Amino acid sequence: MNIKTSTIKELENLCKEIREEILRVVSKNGGHLSSTLGATELIVAMHKVFDSKKDPFIFDVSHQSYAHKLLTGRWKEFDTLRQFNGLSGYTKPSESEHDYFVAGHSSTSISLGVGAAKAIALKGEQNERVPVVMIGDGSMTAGMVYEALNELGDRKYPMIIILNDNEMSISKPIGALSRMLSSAMASPFYQNFKKHTENFVDNFGESAHYIAKRMEESLKLITPGIMFEEMGIDYIGPIDGHNLPSLIEILQKAKELKKPVIVHAQTIKGKGYEKAEGQEEKWHGVGPFDIDSGNSSNKSTLKSATKIYAEALLHLCEENEKIVGATAAMPSGTGLSELIQKYPNRFWDVAIAEQHAVTSMAALAKEGFKPFCTIYSTFLQRGYDQIIHDTCLMDLPVVFALDRAGIVGEDGETHQGVFDISFLRAIPNMTLFAPRDEKSFHQALAFAASYQHTCSLRYPRGSFIETDLPESQPFELAKSQLLRSNSSDILFIGYGNGVGRAYQTAELLNDEVSILDLRFVKPLDNEMLREMAAKHKKWFVFSDSAKMGGVGSAILEFLSKEKILDVEVVSFEYEDNFITHGNTKQVEESLGLLPLQLAKKVMELVE
Amino acid sequence: MNIKTSTIKELENLCKEIREEILRVVSKNGGHLSSTLGATELIVAMHKVFDSKKDPFIFDVSHQSYAHKLLTGRWKEFDTLRQFNGLSGYTKPSESEHDYFVAGHSSTSISLGVGAAKAIALKGEQNERVPVVMIGDGSMTAGMVYEALNELGDRKYPMIIILNDNEMSISKPIGALSRMLSSAMASPFYQNFKKHTENFVDNFGESAHYIAKRMEESLKLITPGIMFEEMGIDYIGPIDGHNLPSLIEILQKAKELKKPVIVHAQTIKGKGYEKAEGQEEKWHGVGPFDIDSGNSSNKSTLKSATKIYAEALLHLCEENEKIVGATAAMPSGTGLSELIQKYPNRFWDVAIAEQHAVTSMAALAKEGFKPFCTIYSTFLQRGYDQIIHDTCLMDLPVVFALDRAGIVGEDGETHQGVFDISFLRAIPNMTLFAPRDEKSFHQALAFAASYQHTCSLRYPRGSFIETDLPESQPFELAKSQLLRSNSSDILFIGYGNGVGRAYQTAELLNDEVSILDLRFVKPLDNEMLREMAAKHKKWFVFSDSAKMGGVGSAILEFLSKEKILDVEVVSFEYEDNFITHGNTKQVEESLGLLPLQLAKKVMELVE
Repeated sequence: MNIKTSTIKELENLCKEIREEILRVVSKNGGHLSSTLGATELIVAMHKVFDSKKDPFIFDVSHQSYAHKLLTGRWKEFDTLRQFNGLSGYTKPSESEHDYFVAGHSSTSISLGVGAAKAIALKGEQNERVPVVMIGDGSMTAGMVYEALNELGDRKYPMIIILNDNEMSISKPIGALSRMLSSAMASPFYQNFKKHTENFVDNFGESAHYIAKRMEESLKLITPGIMFEEMGIDYIGPIDGHNLPSLIEILQKAKELKKPVIVHAQTIKGKGYEKAEGQEEKWHGVGPFDIDSGNSSNKSTLKSATKIYAEALLHLCEENEKIVGATAAMPSGTGLSELIQKYPNRFWDVAIAEQHAVTSMAALAKEGFKPFCTIYSTFLQRGYDQIIHDTCLMDLPVVFALDRAGIVGEDGETHQGVFDISFLRAIPNMTLFAPRDEKSFHQALAFAASYQHTCSLRYPRGSFIETDLPESQPFELAKSQLLRSNSSDILFIGYGNGVGRAYQTAELLNDEVSILDLRFVKPLDNEMLREMAAKHKKWFVFSDSAKMGGVGSAILEFLSKEKILDVEVVSFEYEDNFITHGNTKQVEESLGLLPLQLAKKVMELVE
Repeated sequence: MNIKTSTIKELENLCKEIREEILRVVSKNGGHLSSTLGATELIVAMHKVFDSKKDPFIFDVSHQSYAHKLLTGRWKEFDTLRQFNGLSGYTKPSESEHDYFVAGHSSTSISLGVGAAKAIALKGEQNERVPVVMIGDGSMTAGMVYEALNELGDRKYPMIIILNDNEMSISKPIGALSRMLSSAMASPFYQNFKKHTENFVDNFGESAHYIAKRMEESLKLITPGIMFEEMGIDYIGPIDGHNLPSLIEILQKAKELKKPVIVHAQTIKGKGYEKAEGQEEKWHGVGPFDIDSGNSSNKSTLKSATKIYAEALLHLCEENEKIVGATAAMPSGTGLSELIQKYPNRFWDVAIAEQHAVTSMAALAKEGFKPFCTIYSTFLQRGYDQIIHDTCLMDLPVVFALDRAGIVGEDGETHQGVFDISFLRAIPNMTLFAPRDEKSFHQALAFAASYQHTCSLRYPRGSFIETDLPESQPFELAKSQLLRSNSSDILFIGYGNGVGRAYQTAELLNDEVSILDLRFVKPLDNEMLREMAAKHKKWFVFSDSAKMGGVGSAILEFLSKEKILDVEVVSFEYEDNFITHGNTKQVEESLGLLPLQLAKKVMELVE
């Protein structure tokens, strides 16, 4: 089917088929549902008016781009969505020439558009190509967008920005901008505006005409476009994002403007699947589910680390009124929803705004509070400077709770939480530790709550590796816990979820190794490590983190400083590659990180 | 003198004295001049209306806060400004209880204000305390500000934001926001607005009154405050930032509002020192100078690394039209001014917007261009996620040129360029290298220009360490250069400016060591390192970078992987502390990093 030559009727049918296919595959594989359902007409209209082979199609976060995948030769493979070796849940140039960029973090699209526009101008291709950006209202809260708009409004590169406004983002819309987008239009004054001015001009003639004209111009500013127009970017909207003929007409018009223009389209998240329509967070990202009942097909009974975190923090909050916290638009993902509900004056969703989350929490710490800044490992990369400059430099007792540390599974390479140890460890005044199971998580949080310096703890997506670990002891600064000690030359050092992996691997080796739960990667337990170095000469490191600058590297630095030359260290952390998406077990298998594979390696290396 | 009880006349005299003192000390010590001169009345008015012992005084970037230092018990010590063991050039709580936060990076102030406001609300101190933020127009371009405003406008915490608008920031104002702030007010329509509406209402009576009222409300939006008002923040201004009585009156009013309010004050940068008034970049940050002539007292004849960079890049640009580049508001600091002037379509100042700089350059690389993204090491921390997610994940050939790597001298702890190796090395697809002198810098840039992957090179503030190094050979991927080889057990490994330090240290040891210029810290020159490990068993690492995760750490990882256990490594990188301000040599001496100190340590360690 050729979209370019199709009739509206045919395209509307196409939208229906796309929705059915998305629903079918997402209900089977899990994935992002409501945003992609809501963007279907927008994406079909984009393909009708523009050409993704030529025009850079830039999808912000890109979890809403499934329809685009289906329209660009990936219908057949769509069944493999988010599976190991299958299609990515995000745009990915290595998958299709129609995908301009990888995107999994939000709010990068307008910057990419500006870069593309600069290139188009330099190549003199302005008459053939234009960047077409699609961005959700949730993504508009991140500062990066304004940095890009600031340059765009000044330099005026032709660009189409489709603002896909479903008034929701992942969770509830947060902040002034969101209110501005949605509420102003509803004012009766604006609604009756045309009539008002017409009457006015009729009644007062020429000089009044001038004033009315000015008034019209001014009143226009009361639309949601006010801010964009002021920044030098044309604004069209709001329009119905599900009305295909009108979308096509307006995009065509926008294209002809040869200016930067924002097309503000209002859509309904989940459109076409009744159970998801108008729902907030629940249907944003989902696991496999039954289409008819809407019930999840997952029957996991293990408690997630996120859930343990939320329960433990809630408990601590009841005892210590100084505890406060923030999430950057992930209230349910980080488990903070309940805390926000229970303590609306102590826990805040600050929207997609990691920089602001970090720095505002630093100020609360300065004021004597104990902030728990809860952010996925991968998204904390957005607040890196703020951790250094606003938190550690002041030696403030903010706790960074890093959810989704390690391999995250189906979301894949943009979301893997692998770099945090490497980028945080080098910061002075930072303390790094990690729990290994439910009990130790409670203990780690109790430690964090009373610790008077900046610290950071990490825990995995989903549940901890399930093994029968010895009982965890309370956390004490720079103290590891020796879980098993014997006369073998081999020492397994586990960190966080790596402890479970070390244990499982040890079982396969008839438990003929000693096992240390490192607990603190900064500062290290020097005393214990010295003792271990005297007893065991072959150390193996287990941690769900990048090898470069990671846990193994910290241990090498220790041995070097101590001039211990007779200990051999092998780290089973991640090698220097981006890690693909898929079922976590399959991904780990592809990296040789399953216990059976690790046990073999240990045997080979020891022989 | 008690500001609270002083008359306006006395306060105006005080402003004069403050300016004289600032001029006297900055002309002697160097420092930030024009912004701090411009902010004098604002700061005096702040102290008249608010109480810095109680109200959080939050200075954005804080290089404009000298008057505040003078007013809070530091007049006597002001002579030591920016000197080793002297006063910091920025606010610093350890220096005075009147300094709320450390700030050297821009655009953090409103987030800090929001955090402080939350704390004030939680403590129930709203009637006694209010955060008072001062932020320059240049700082308004960084996205972080919008993240904070988005929450502030929604939650409406009482807060005073003084927008110190000198239409300049460090260099020329960039972007739509800046134009919006300055131009709209000049419109004759706005100027005559009051008269217009008054006439209108007089002539048309009651029903017209309603329309005129609406019009008045609408027209208000044409002021620079439009954007802030729309975000839910009250706007007052623009007002004359040098008119003390009016400033005091308006701040008093703003205080009474008990709402978030922006007071937009227009100031003249350099006010009170004729040579600096209305000047752009030149008088922002200065070295010692003669007050009468305005001439610099520095007579350094060494070419700065920045200058070498600019010359070399200009040369490459002439040959290769694919080369483009960006700076984030540091055109002169990074040496890009001349390139922007010569190639306005290929080099861009994108304003203080590191995130946007990185991601927009990534798009240009995708389009086949060769971007040189030139950012100080310390400010690149702001673009960290964008390097991972938008650049390296796509394996795009962006060059990150990191100026001010290592100790930066008088700017001190907020500006030290020490973490870049640690945070960049862990990123897959990233290549890291460094030049050691002028010739090698040209060669390193030639390599970068033709390299097809993401890479990053670092170079020091000021000039390279001056030594008589052997001639540099062209850069080749993962190839080091052996500068001196002998039969000693000792190998010095230098990286970047560390090569000069290694050389100077070697001279003091009668050159009885071998010296390797590592050049690439990622990927390492495995072959050469293997060869060195066979010959030399005592390695010393010289690099201007954090030890944790730094060059020494990379070498330890190599040795561990190669199972080389008989080589001892000592790294002379920076220990795990924030590094203070002062003359670079004095700071290095305090860290034991001068060649004489290092030579002694080597001798001790080898014995």
